Amino acid sequence: MDVELNIPKSNKPRVVVIGGGFAGIEFSRALPEEDFQLVMIDRNNYHTFQPLLYQVATAGLEPDSIASPLRKMFDNRSNYYFRWTSVEKIIPQENYILTGIGRLDFDILVIAAGSKTNFFGNKEMSERAFEMKQIPQALDLRSQILQNFEKATITADPLERDSLMDYVIVGGGPTGVELSGALAELKTHVLPSDYPELDFSLMNIYLIEGSPTLLGPMSKFSQEKAFKYLHKMGVEIKLNARVQSYDGKKVKLVDGTEINSSTVIWAAGVSGSIIDGLKEESIFKGRYKVDEYNKIIGSENIYAIGDIAAMVSTKNPNGHPMVSPVAMQQGKNLGNNLKRKLKNETLKPFEYFDKGSMATVGRNKAIVDFPHPFDKLHLGGIFAWMAWMFVHIFYITVFRNKLLIFINWLWSYLTYDKGNRLIIRPFKRESNKPRAEIKELYETKVE
Amino acid sequence: MDVELNIPKSNKPRVVVIGGGFAGIEFSRALPEEDFQLVMIDRNNYHTFQPLLYQVATAGLEPDSIASPLRKMFDNRSNYYFRWTSVEKIIPQENYILTGIGRLDFDILVIAAGSKTNFFGNKEMSERAFEMKQIPQALDLRSQILQNFEKATITADPLERDSLMDYVIVGGGPTGVELSGALAELKTHVLPSDYPELDFSLMNIYLIEGSPTLLGPMSKFSQEKAFKYLHKMGVEIKLNARVQSYDGKKVKLVDGTEINSSTVIWAAGVSGSIIDGLKEESIFKGRYKVDEYNKIIGSENIYAIGDIAAMVSTKNPNGHPMVSPVAMQQGKNLGNNLKRKLKNETLKPFEYFDKGSMATVGRNKAIVDFPHPFDKLHLGGIFAWMAWMFVHIFYITVFRNKLLIFINWLWSYLTYDKGNRLIIRPFKRESNKPRAEIKELYETKVE
Repeated sequence: MDVELNIPKSNKPRVVVIGGGFAGIEFSRALPEEDFQLVMIDRNNYHTFQPLLYQVATAGLEPDSIASPLRKMFDNRSNYYFRWTSVEKIIPQENYILTGIGRLDFDILVIAAGSKTNFFGNKEMSERAFEMKQIPQALDLRSQILQNFEKATITADPLERDSLMDYVIVGGGPTGVELSGALAELKTHVLPSDYPELDFSLMNIYLIEGSPTLLGPMSKFSQEKAFKYLHKMGVEIKLNARVQSYDGKKVKLVDGTEINSSTVIWAAGVSGSIIDGLKEESIFKGRYKVDEYNKIIGSENIYAIGDIAAMVSTKNPNGHPMVSPVAMQQGKNLGNNLKRKLKNETLKPFEYFDKGSMATVGRNKAIVDFPHPFDKLHLGGIFAWMAWMFVHIFYITVFRNKLLIFINWLWSYLTYDKGNRLIIRPFKRESNKPRAEIKELYETKVE
Repeated sequence: MDVELNIPKSNKPRVVVIGGGFAGIEFSRALPEEDFQLVMIDRNNYHTFQPLLYQVATAGLEPDSIASPLRKMFDNRSNYYFRWTSVEKIIPQENYILTGIGRLDFDILVIAAGSKTNFFGNKEMSERAFEMKQIPQALDLRSQILQNFEKATITADPLERDSLMDYVIVGGGPTGVELSGALAELKTHVLPSDYPELDFSLMNIYLIEGSPTLLGPMSKFSQEKAFKYLHKMGVEIKLNARVQSYDGKKVKLVDGTEINSSTVIWAAGVSGSIIDGLKEESIFKGRYKVDEYNKIIGSENIYAIGDIAAMVSTKNPNGHPMVSPVAMQQGKNLGNNLKRKLKNETLKPFEYFDKGSMATVGRNKAIVDFPHPFDKLHLGGIFAWMAWMFVHIFYITVFRNKLLIFINWLWSYLTYDKGNRLIIRPFKRESNKPRAEIKELYETKVE
């Protein structure tokens, strides 16, 4: 029945994993290849190292260095199949999924589809704001930023110039903090020499956060340090602030403040990329409700790991935080548990080992909260920044990418420059014939 | 009158250079900054190192490493203005040009707009074939190649699979030779481990050349060596062959041969990117006819350099070859001549110093023809290949790019891998509102 995806039947149980993010990758690494056939589905043909997306958006890194082709990553694995497509529906009663390219049967299904931007129903924002979840989005934002300054250079209208040079970032979590820090560095070190005609004291970067602090889940030390760093770098931070409306040119906050900005970046929240087909009782606040073995409540052979899984307990009444360490650990634990199950060994319930958390604000500026039992310890400044770089290079999957990122960072550090200032927008061919075919193909594959 | 582009009047003569390719860059470097106001116009905000475009298309290099932002390149220069736009018309009588963003006056105009793909009137090809002149085109081809194999993996139709796995490259010049060599290496070293389901003996690479030899202007030694290399690598070379028709699936040659291929790359010729507005008598075979100082015939203050200039002489009845050394040397000579003219010194007529030529076919395989008086000397094999790499890294404009390219090449050499296997197609937003605005902006800027 799975003839459509051209995957041969195997005498091993078939595990289908949806998503090649941190959870899917770690799961696939832990799953023993001799005991299972593994099929990975992703709508991109590469794994994205999301923590560094903001550096792609701000010209610090080229996209290729934070992406790893998913076929390459497992090309030594036997009985592994990758299919580049989206998943449209799960039919749990009959153990198959419907994808953009056809039907695929499974013995075990692992949903690691991650999360998508949550606009909390704000239609204006969902239509006009930039997102930061995928590489094409980061490239889109990079082009937009550079185009803004090209346009600001030639406009005679001061209001338009103002709108082109002002940035509003909604959400004071790690993405919002890191992105506004990177924009502030562009403003200080890179853009003024590129655009000598412009007065960069007119460039304002606003960071809007609904709660009373930045970096909600981090320590008070880190929250205050991040605030201080950003403030010193010229970012205007508005806490306890909420966006009321946005018409593409002007952001209105609930307190009445108006900001002219043609570029709003929405980093205020994510929700699970739920797929059609499972019962309502399996879903909890936009994520799949799972037991302590990551099995979805109400299913026998369907699991969820990473951002999309809500493992509710007294300690975590809303499930674990939607961060990569949880995803990686759940993926690994599930991979090992499937092996244990096959051998009739006792399964190991998931336990989150919190490794602490960190965020970077800019050159020599970062913050680190250490994990239990050192959770009274915090680090700021250059040592935190070096730790942040080390950890990120360590977790980058492919050695070649480690090398490229290291060189880019070293280069930027020595020269204060960010080299990837290319405006690359979709290319328009003279005829739209082949383009139309391509577009069609693309649109069936990506939501 | 040039208020539209927001460039202040200067007491120095204003030189407007159209195009930031090799000719425009070298011209701008040679032009003394204290004596002129310099305005550069380009439809990209970056300089493209075109000789390595084929490596972007075949996943060997990331696009950012062969591009240098044009603002950055001259950010130390005073009285320099860059404008990101296209040029629509020249009004020579009144000394101004019309651009996508408004009118711009000039005292001296230098046209360095380069060349575009010449389909020689073949409408089918112009609609369906891939080009290799710009970075977005190379990225488009890279995505196409990878998508082809994703599709070939799942199709049940052997004819379709055949068409997806076969490549036709039209034109046996350096681009055609280098591209077919790079495809052959992908076939041998990279793709089989990515797509274990596919039988790569079915992948055929055809190189179609209308004349009796590859690499027309090179020595017999190099022509034969290139043929031998490619033949050994499995490329099917068809000399004295011409394309008759192409419907998007099947290429028909004039001799009746039919090739199923969904991907045809057209590298068979270029012509000057002529701009509207100059008299007919200024144009010679699709290029501007210039005197020995690169001044366009019939003009007083309008020059053309590089691919777009035809400097006709008894030695070069069709003008110089459209290659980067000519462009660079003409740019430099013109920059120096404008200075001489200002000081009433004798101008220096352009003389082409042929530095020889080279092409690479693949790993350890390249050919070099030495220049006069060593033109009996030729080099092949690993030493030619090393010379080719050295020369290309030497001519890459930005040091950071030299470093990134060196690392990429070293990495590929050691691992036989090509790391940039990302399918990145235009990103579709949920709403097309902001996208529409962007598209409009984009389309006014790029032909």
